[in-house]
Amino acid sequence: MNNYWNQYPVIKKDLEIIEDILKENMKCRDKEIEESLLMMLSSGGKMLRPSFLLLAGGFGKASSKKLYPLAAVIELLHMATLIHDDIIDNSEYRRGTPTIHAEFGPNYAVFTGDLLFTRCFTLLSNNTSMDNMRRISNVIAKICQGEIEQYSSHYQIDNTVKQYLRRISTKTAALFSLSLFIGASEAKCSKQLTAKLANIGLNIGMAFQIIDDILDYVGSEDIVGKPLGNDLKQGIFTLPLLYTLKVENNGIEEILKKKDYTAEDIRNIITKTIELGGLKRARELAKKYTDKAFKILNTLPNCESKKILTEITETLLIREY
Amino acid sequence: MNNYWNQYPVIKKDLEIIEDILKENMKCRDKEIEESLLMMLSSGGKMLRPSFLLLAGGFGKASSKKLYPLAAVIELLHMATLIHDDIIDNSEYRRGTPTIHAEFGPNYAVFTGDLLFTRCFTLLSNNTSMDNMRRISNVIAKICQGEIEQYSSHYQIDNTVKQYLRRISTKTAALFSLSLFIGASEAKCSKQLTAKLANIGLNIGMAFQIIDDILDYVGSEDIVGKPLGNDLKQGIFTLPLLYTLKVENNGIEEILKKKDYTAEDIRNIITKTIELGGLKRARELAKKYTDKAFKILNTLPNCESKKILTEITETLLIREY
Repeated sequence: MNNYWNQYPVIKKDLEIIEDILKENMKCRDKEIEESLLMMLSSGGKMLRPSFLLLAGGFGKASSKKLYPLAAVIELLHMATLIHDDIIDNSEYRRGTPTIHAEFGPNYAVFTGDLLFTRCFTLLSNNTSMDNMRRISNVIAKICQGEIEQYSSHYQIDNTVKQYLRRISTKTAALFSLSLFIGASEAKCSKQLTAKLANIGLNIGMAFQIIDDILDYVGSEDIVGKPLGNDLKQGIFTLPLLYTLKVENNGIEEILKKKDYTAEDIRNIITKTIELGGLKRARELAKKYTDKAFKILNTLPNCESKKILTEITETLLIREY
Repeated sequence: MNNYWNQYPVIKKDLEIIEDILKENMKCRDKEIEESLLMMLSSGGKMLRPSFLLLAGGFGKASSKKLYPLAAVIELLHMATLIHDDIIDNSEYRRGTPTIHAEFGPNYAVFTGDLLFTRCFTLLSNNTSMDNMRRISNVIAKICQGEIEQYSSHYQIDNTVKQYLRRISTKTAALFSLSLFIGASEAKCSKQLTAKLANIGLNIGMAFQIIDDILDYVGSEDIVGKPLGNDLKQGIFTLPLLYTLKVENNGIEEILKKKDYTAEDIRNIITKTIELGGLKRARELAKKYTDKAFKILNTLPNCESKKILTEITETLLIREY
């Protein structure tokens, strides 16, 4: 369990139970695959999405028991997309641990991801309503389309900021939003409160992804768990770069067209992104989404969940980057 | 629509409706992907699984309207696994049409398969019970594990016949069985009749896959749609070969250990498989499953569905190969 949760013992305890459900659902006749899934689990993701689901549940009336399997579904879903993502992005490491793609090859990764997807649906069919089932399917379909779009946008220097925002809203923000929605709706929160929580999730998700993309330009490898410029090298052009490309005579278009970037190319692009203000503008947009999330958060009824959700959002989104 | 169904106009009409549902569910913001999915659909699979589902429904009382989306789910599911399968097997063609993997690369294929998987669940959540949802999820999980096992068994000359049979039962037969089960259970057939139909599906599926594997050794490229020895070349050792390997001094173990087989190696292995009786034994086992399917079929109540199911099974399984 990530020590991020040490200061919230109640959530930590809940997440440990969810971790057990996850382990149960990673069982596979192929023991190597099972082991690598367990390693991925223990390599210390923060389990943000399941904790958001639980926190949203705290705004209404839901037994934790009812929420646990749903929170596990959200994390399984997230892991499944990460595994397939790592194939697409040809990633070797995630949080310092070798990816399934790197360790076993893309073939294993394809079906391991599929297996986790399926386990989500089995868990859901035992624990939720058809309505939520439909909603979750729609979000997964959105995520897939977001991934397809992300891939087809590789190395495209004419990507617009609007396209980028749509992509991250389906790729990342939709799942944050879904987590809060499911928690709230299972806890029978009012429609208005449920919609507010889903909207908070959307804004947190947008800010979270923009910050993640900023960290590809300025992060320290130790913290981010992958080398600087990793996305850039794969031809994933994110917000800081897209803003920089809007500056006339930016001097990087020529480099970007090459496709096979040297370490020096990467350094040059990163420097330009900082010098020409692309990074600054990206930070500003992240802040806009963060502010929006807090603005809605402030209108929520006071309770322990609100307090924790506010604190987590602060540590996640208001930090040096 | 495959002209296989010309002689059964009622089924053909049903399948055309199902094809429309499939097209609807292949919509994707990426138009290239959508087009390649439509091409895959039109390249003329027989839509055996959806027709089995409809035929099973004919043994009870179910409006076709209720069965259509479920039949579409089964075909979508089948297509999703084929798309991911083609990544694993590095296949360039399927039924003479380039695979998504070959045309767009493995990355597109990963998420296109995921998208179809998800569409299955969305369709299901609008059209069936949680019980069926659970059953379908379990079958997909089985298929994934079967695929993982198939891949990890590549180039393993110590594969046993028992392992092979377990693999094809999860990889192929489970979906045939599920198709008949779902059709029967949605049509409120008795538990006994539903179980019989599911069992027929299992036996048809086993025979079907063994015959498919035999065709890798003796099929004509025109009919099978892929070159002879295609599986063999990928290190997929199927029943004819596994039986041949049981013969002492078979003279092929040394070739198989090489892994990178020349055209001559492939020819030699195929010749040995025929000469040493491996192919004959595989045919015998296929016949055993076929006989079993017919034996149960004969005990079913007489109706139009029984007649057609019997005829289809005959054309599928009793032919020159």
